Amino acid sequence: MRRIKLEVAYDGTNYCGWQIQPGKPTVEAEINQALTKLLKEEIKVIGASRTDSGVHALGNVAVFDTERMIPAEKICFALNQWLPEDIRVQNSIEVPSDFHPRKVACRKTYEYRILNSRIAIPTERLYANFIYYDMDIEKMQEAANDLIGEHDFKSFCSVKTQVLDTVRTIYKLEVHKNGDIITIRVNGNGFLYNMVRIIVGTLLEVGRGSIQPEMVKEILEKKDRKFAGPTAPANGLILVNIEYL
Amino acid sequence: MRRIKLEVAYDGTNYCGWQIQPGKPTVEAEINQALTKLLKEEIKVIGASRTDSGVHALGNVAVFDTERMIPAEKICFALNQWLPEDIRVQNSIEVPSDFHPRKVACRKTYEYRILNSRIAIPTERLYANFIYYDMDIEKMQEAANDLIGEHDFKSFCSVKTQVLDTVRTIYKLEVHKNGDIITIRVNGNGFLYNMVRIIVGTLLEVGRGSIQPEMVKEILEKKDRKFAGPTAPANGLILVNIEYL
Repeated sequence: MRRIKLEVAYDGTNYCGWQIQPGKPTVEAEINQALTKLLKEEIKVIGASRTDSGVHALGNVAVFDTERMIPAEKICFALNQWLPEDIRVQNSIEVPSDFHPRKVACRKTYEYRILNSRIAIPTERLYANFIYYDMDIEKMQEAANDLIGEHDFKSFCSVKTQVLDTVRTIYKLEVHKNGDIITIRVNGNGFLYNMVRIIVGTLLEVGRGSIQPEMVKEILEKKDRKFAGPTAPANGLILVNIEYL
Repeated sequence: MRRIKLEVAYDGTNYCGWQIQPGKPTVEAEINQALTKLLKEEIKVIGASRTDSGVHALGNVAVFDTERMIPAEKICFALNQWLPEDIRVQNSIEVPSDFHPRKVACRKTYEYRILNSRIAIPTERLYANFIYYDMDIEKMQEAANDLIGEHDFKSFCSVKTQVLDTVRTIYKLEVHKNGDIITIRVNGNGFLYNMVRIIVGTLLEVGRGSIQPEMVKEILEKKDRKFAGPTAPANGLILVNIEYL
C-alpha cells in the first residue's frame, strides 16, 4: 500500500466547496470518482483544506492510499483525463504512509483579489470581488500589520466553528494594488472557519474608512465575531498553496 | 436626436459573438434589448468590431441614436442594471451624429493570452489558451517583427472573408512572457476576419519550432491562407480597446 499526495487546482465557481455533501457537486466527490475510475478500486481522499463554496485553489492538497503499481508521478496526468476541466491535479508524489494533510505542520497561502474600479469588468467577475468605492491601501496595510503574529483570532472566525483553540499565527499579510486590482495575500500556520474572508472583510471596511486601522487591535481583544467586518464574498478567494514543513 | 457612443466590456464565453444571429445569444442582441427596455424606444446599435464566438472584450464600441433626454454619461450606469453580469458598459458619451464606428479611422488593440505550463490551471481556462510544450519567445518576437508595418495580410485572413482590400497596417506586435503567461499584444488600423487569431496561430507554430521565423515574410508574399498557421482558439483573445483618431 502506498500513500499518494496530490496538489489540486480548481475553479470553485460551480462547486459547493471541497467537502463531500450528499446530492451536491463538490471537488472532493469529483476527485474520488475520477480516482476510483482510474485505479478501479474505491478511493476516498483525505483533503487538507475544506474550502468554502465558490472558493478557488491553485494548490489544495489531498492524499489517498492505493495498491496499484502505477508510477506516482504519472497519476496526475492520467487522473486529469477523468476530471472535468475546472479541476486539474498539478502533481502527484508518493509520501510516507502516515502523512496526514491536516495533522502535519504547514503554512498556507491564500490570495484575495478585488477589482476596484468605477464599473465591473466581466472577465474579472469570477475571480475578483468588485468594489467601486475608493480604497485607502495604506490604511489597509496599517491594519493588516496588527494582525501579523500569534493571536487569538476568535473575532475573525465564523461562530459556526467547532474548534476550541482559536490561536493561530499569521506570518505575512500584504495588501498590494496593481492597476485596478487590489491583492491581499496572507500566509499563516492555519486558518479558522471563514478567517481569511473575515480578515479581508475587515480590511475592506478599513479601506473604505468605516473602521479605523487602530481598531483592529481592539477587535482582536474582544474575541467576539460581531466586532470584525463582514465575511468577504467567496469568489475573490484562492488557496494558493500549502507548504509542509 | 443625439448619437451616443458606448464602450462595452464582455466575457464572450457564453455568446455566439457580437453580431445578432437569429435564435442565438449574442452581445449585440443583449445590448439592443437592454437599451430598448431602458429608453422605452426600439434601439439598434451599430457595433465597431464583430468579435467572434467566444472572444472577449474590455472596450468594444457601439453607437445608437435616441430622442430621450437622459444625460449621456449616466446611460452606462442605468444600462448595466438591465444587462447580464457578463456584459458591462464602461462608459457612454455623446458623439457627432455622423460618427460611424466602422467608418472612422481608428487603431485597435487586441491581446492574446497563453497559459504555457505542464498542466492546465482551471482558473485560467476561460481567458487563456493552454499550451504545454516549450515556446521560444525570442523566435516568436523575431517573426512578429516581420509582420509590423503595412502589408497585404491576405495569407492571415479567413478564406470566408468578403473584403477585397486586404492591406492593413500593424503598428505594434509584442510577445511577452510573465511567469506561465505568454501575452501577444497587437495594435493596428484594422484587422481582417480571423486575422489576429491566424497571426497568433502562426506565431505559436514559430514558438514550438514548426515554422522558422524567417518564413513569415514568405507567408505574407504567398497571399494564400493555407501557408499561415492554424487559427488560434477564441478563448485567449480579448479586444482591449479602439482608439478613434
